[in-house]
Amino acid sequence: MVDESARVRVAVLGASGYAGGELVRLLLAHPRVELGHLAANESAGRTVGEVHPHLAPSPVGGWVLAPLDAAAAAERASFAFLSLPHGASATLAPALLDAGLRVVDLAGDFRLPAGAYPEWYGFEHPSPAWLEKAVYGLPELFAGDIAGASLVANPGCYPTPVALGLAPLLSAGLIGPGPIVVDGKTGLSGAGRALAEATSYAATEDSVRPYRFPKHQHTPEMERALELASGIPATVSFVPHLVPSVRGVLVTCYAPLGAGATTDSLTGCLAAAYADAPFVRVLPSGDMADTKRIRGSNLVELQAVADPRTGTAIVVGALDNLVKGAAGQAVQNMNLMAGFEQTAGLQAMAVYP
Amino acid sequence: MVDESARVRVAVLGASGYAGGELVRLLLAHPRVELGHLAANESAGRTVGEVHPHLAPSPVGGWVLAPLDAAAAAERASFAFLSLPHGASATLAPALLDAGLRVVDLAGDFRLPAGAYPEWYGFEHPSPAWLEKAVYGLPELFAGDIAGASLVANPGCYPTPVALGLAPLLSAGLIGPGPIVVDGKTGLSGAGRALAEATSYAATEDSVRPYRFPKHQHTPEMERALELASGIPATVSFVPHLVPSVRGVLVTCYAPLGAGATTDSLTGCLAAAYADAPFVRVLPSGDMADTKRIRGSNLVELQAVADPRTGTAIVVGALDNLVKGAAGQAVQNMNLMAGFEQTAGLQAMAVYP
Amino acid sequence: MVDESARVRVAVLGASGYAGGELVRLLLAHPRVELGHLAANESAGRTVGEVHPHLAPSPVGGWVLAPLDAAAAAERASFAFLSLPHGASATLAPALLDAGLRVVDLAGDFRLPAGAYPEWYGFEHPSPAWLEKAVYGLPELFAGDIAGASLVANPGCYPTPVALGLAPLLSAGLIGPGPIVVDGKTGLSGAGRALAEATSYAATEDSVRPYRFPKHQHTPEMERALELASGIPATVSFVPHLVPSVRGVLVTCYAPLGAGATTDSLTGCLAAAYADAPFVRVLPSGDMADTKRIRGSNLVELQAVADPRTGTAIVVGALDNLVKGAAGQAVQNMNLMAGFEQTAGLQAMAVYP
Amino acid sequence: MVDESARVRVAVLGASGYAGGELVRLLLAHPRVELGHLAANESAGRTVGEVHPHLAPSPVGGWVLAPLDAAAAAERASFAFLSLPHGASATLAPALLDAGLRVVDLAGDFRLPAGAYPEWYGFEHPSPAWLEKAVYGLPELFAGDIAGASLVANPGCYPTPVALGLAPLLSAGLIGPGPIVVDGKTGLSGAGRALAEATSYAATEDSVRPYRFPKHQHTPEMERALELASGIPATVSFVPHLVPSVRGVLVTCYAPLGAGATTDSLTGCLAAAYADAPFVRVLPSGDMADTKRIRGSNLVELQAVADPRTGTAIVVGALDNLVKGAAGQAVQNMNLMAGFEQTAGLQAMAVYP
Repeated sequence: MVDESARVRVAVLGASGYAGGELVRLLLAHPRVELGHLAANESAGRTVGEVHPHLAPSPVGGWVLAPLDAAAAAERASFAFLSLPHGASATLAPALLDAGLRVVDLAGDFRLPAGAYPEWYGFEHPSPAWLEKAVYGLPELFAGDIAGASLVANPGCYPTPVALGLAPLLSAGLIGPGPIVVDGKTGLSGAGRALAEATSYAATEDSVRPYRFPKHQHTPEMERALELASGIPATVSFVPHLVPSVRGVLVTCYAPLGAGATTDSLTGCLAAAYADAPFVRVLPSGDMADTKRIRGSNLVELQAVADPRTGTAIVVGALDNLVKGAAGQAVQNMNLMAGFEQTAGLQAMAVYP
Repeated sequence: MVDESARVRVAVLGASGYAGGELVRLLLAHPRVELGHLAANESAGRTVGEVHPHLAPSPVGGWVLAPLDAAAAAERASFAFLSLPHGASATLAPALLDAGLRVVDLAGDFRLPAGAYPEWYGFEHPSPAWLEKAVYGLPELFAGDIAGASLVANPGCYPTPVALGLAPLLSAGLIGPGPIVVDGKTGLSGAGRALAEATSYAATEDSVRPYRFPKHQHTPEMERALELASGIPATVSFVPHLVPSVRGVLVTCYAPLGAGATTDSLTGCLAAAYADAPFVRVLPSGDMADTKRIRGSNLVELQAVADPRTGTAIVVGALDNLVKGAAGQAVQNMNLMAGFEQTAGLQAMAVYP
Repeated sequence: MVDESARVRVAVLGASGYAGGELVRLLLAHPRVELGHLAANESAGRTVGEVHPHLAPSPVGGWVLAPLDAAAAAERASFAFLSLPHGASATLAPALLDAGLRVVDLAGDFRLPAGAYPEWYGFEHPSPAWLEKAVYGLPELFAGDIAGASLVANPGCYPTPVALGLAPLLSAGLIGPGPIVVDGKTGLSGAGRALAEATSYAATEDSVRPYRFPKHQHTPEMERALELASGIPATVSFVPHLVPSVRGVLVTCYAPLGAGATTDSLTGCLAAAYADAPFVRVLPSGDMADTKRIRGSNLVELQAVADPRTGTAIVVGALDNLVKGAAGQAVQNMNLMAGFEQTAGLQAMAVYP
Repeated sequence: MVDESARVRVAVLGASGYAGGELVRLLLAHPRVELGHLAANESAGRTVGEVHPHLAPSPVGGWVLAPLDAAAAAERASFAFLSLPHGASATLAPALLDAGLRVVDLAGDFRLPAGAYPEWYGFEHPSPAWLEKAVYGLPELFAGDIAGASLVANPGCYPTPVALGLAPLLSAGLIGPGPIVVDGKTGLSGAGRALAEATSYAATEDSVRPYRFPKHQHTPEMERALELASGIPATVSFVPHLVPSVRGVLVTCYAPLGAGATTDSLTGCLAAAYADAPFVRVLPSGDMADTKRIRGSNLVELQAVADPRTGTAIVVGALDNLVKGAAGQAVQNMNLMAGFEQTAGLQAMAVYP
């Protein structure tokens, strides 16, 4: 039962990066949200318009970003988004939760079991108790748990389409339990806002290259999400690549094809699984996934093809890494937690071309 | 006085091009619009989702585009947008108007005096009577006339920032009446959707080039808009360029600097002229106009600098050619004509980065 | 023994496409080549400078492209490059060969066994006898056969880095004989010069998408090249993708890791295999392959990484699809066939950035 | 009289930036050059291959960059290119000259009269005596002076096409002496290699914006070059813009049209002026200048159009800012100074597409 009059007062901690700016953009257009508090670390003291010139003409363009402080956030909001570098939320989120806020964390700090952090993130997790209570915020797979959660770990941009594309097929036995290959491609907004020669325009135009493999931290997250959703352990080989674009993640997944599975049965399984999911578009056979068609929207495209010659199921997923891969999915989680319509504030179509 | 409950039923004729798709995208999100009729010429019979894959998941994704027909449009709508190739509206608009619809034309068919069409558009105007009644739809300069008009000629993407940037300065005597140079840069969506090797990705990456000068049809439109708004005749030398981007027009205007005029007085004049204009952002001194910051929004950025060394006023304007340069401005005109808030359906911030 | 004074007179049949233009560019700078004949199909009668404006200032800028005709080519050249759409060389090459020319074919017409053409290319091969005599022109693996061949099938852009990257590892047992996944990314020059909305700038910027899978014709070519070079049958699942760039192919290959193999042993095996190969750069551990670094050059970069956690060998290869993936490799083959230094005319470094 | 056997031993001081890397790339392919010494400031101690990965496979890939030191350079070379930030050459060049080397400086340190440096470059010139002896290195206009010079000031990327395009027209009276507008567009390699958010890929895609106006230091250089070449004082209003590309500068110049001048007479004047200039391509009427067609080459394209309606001559010039706008022109100057063919090492056609 959706409460049509409910509203929520929201804080964004870590409002200066690309995902933080996208959160502010989406929340400004959300019919049930009031922005109460915007904070940042190094950019504290600057205005929103200075940090995000595209938001200068918005109602919050003149707001001064506050320093990161749980108590200050708690005074002005009952709900907090954390969009900080990995490692920072693990200590800040508990303070916010203790102060009574509900929290969606966009970093990787609450996505894995405690034991995985030293290997994949390079730190010992400081809040294992909260980590156990955190819910993995993939709404299409775990909506029930999300609705009642205090702390939601917003999924990574790569694991989102991988889990959505493969979990129903694993559960249905249409792909086997063997090793899975995930080849990822991302635009430069996925590399964040920090300066580096590798992310300059001159070095990026006409450049395609892999990065940080085989130890990208989204690898164990994919494996865990698949097992959480299907009950079946999965092993993933994952290589991410940077391609000359700004928004958009596309993953191409290769898995063992289940006996008798066809393009139609793979597609049909996904279509049935997401028949009621407003943000998942399962493409009809022959239509190719394309990051551009969903840019700026909260949609994810899924495409499944059987290759019986090699015994491979190929599943392609595409999304906008800053929307369904970050800020949009975070708002979708908030909607579930607050009892709003899942689609509130998220109905924009892609800005195309 | 804004009537808060009024709604309007709308037809889009020419819904298959980029501007037509942008109209549909904006109208879908407009709180007071109901889409009643979508039509196209060559694409008639195809669905919206086939023609515009990014709109496939929208409520009109399955609609079949109707053929262009005034009577059919009149049955289903009281307001029509025409987004057709130059020359087509000149005959279709009168039929719609005679059937009682109010019309915004996005082509160039109602922007110039009848005598200018053979030279600049290559055809004799078939409806000089309606042409005389048409109002030039630049809301920030001609809002009063637009509100009562039956037929509004939506301005071109280049003339919009030129007229907005120069008209107040001409009126105030801060720039002289001498010859004006306008150097324009556009992204590829401005070249339309027709196929050509020159607009292929391979030919466009790392390519900067002028086109169709010195006889681009926006030249007399700039001159006329400036004279309409300021009462002062203007002569414009205009060279447009294609640059490797998709959305965005930036114009750099060079005009004789009025005696005693400074960067501050130029900027102050523009700021005063647009103090109540919700879509015009006059940049403070030192801030550079940038097409990317307003992509997807209805905003226009204006920047003015005096160069006393050479006696030149330099005015830079930037907008998204598909929004403030086409579909967004058309919706803004409809808002004025229908008595809605000028900003209805147009408040989205830019999708950045 | 290299003959330092030898020269060859060359014809290019199919000089109007991107690969044809690249052939002319490279041959113009080749110290032992004289261009004797340039021909095309639809573009016959136009000048080189009209068809390739970047070659207008070259010595052949004013040449008129001849129609495709074996006898005319035989009058003016002793060596022919064919750069035609798939299917056209299969009938033209035999005529040239019968007239005494030696031939390098850049299409796919002589790369597969006759029986594979109906399934993968959609035609019955018209010259199975010549097909049997054709040598697969991957110089680093088959230099001996190439030197004496009359007809060389120049490899495809994707199979080149796949075969170079995997064949030595297969032969050495460092990767197992199990199924191999190849994920390919290409720029738009790989899509050719024909017009299509999908290859327009507006549709391509910020777009990443797969195409023509799982039946891309390079798939059996990869499998065959690997078996030819290693003697071990291979099964490849291949998905190619278009990314927003112009030149450059990058393949990411996932194969079963041989027992005990490490990143060092994989890298060492490749380095040893190509110690004398002037165009193969095996990257040291930690260095990431990058298409931009080799743009415009005949180099291929290979990078190998072991992921013992999942038992996967990951091999990344990068090249310029118009040079090492087409015209450059064709010239390299000609060099071997003509007894020139392998590197003649091919020593340019990348144009960077 | 060209001496066919002469060779020169060359030093590049400032080899780590984009222009420095381009110098090394061009000099490696120059038939009469031996690289003797490569030096840099902050990158001293790193290898060429580390600093310029695209040159890692070249014969100098393993060279360690030396610190900047005139004596060390003089030991290993008789000719020096300086490619340092503005201000650094003004002190280093005299030391090299005193040590007997001939010098081409790619910075702005020897392009203007001493009195102009405080205003336009922000420093007092430390070597006014050498400044007076420096020759402005635009080979098509000042070849005679260059041949005998010890110190050549290599022109800026923007002034090169402006001077080449306008000087003959000024001299012939085809354009008047009135104020000239120059609107410039550059790719990101023109912004150099230093890190800045404004030059990141995410901030640059789909962004068009002006920068550093009206006080760009190329403004007085254009005025001076025009006066040096034509004897007629010129006043230039110049606004440069960044567009999403990497290589390429395009300038659009607007000048008063001389009485009776036509597109044909403008074009004819330029064609006659450059009939013997191997790197200048005067485009026939109707052909549009395009930066992409000359990328990687030392060519400059010039296009002239008369607009009698407004009394304006429009001259468009295009070049590759790293070749004809920097390193290529520097090599061309060296060729003249050393008595080589002007085209030695510079005959490559554009890498297209």
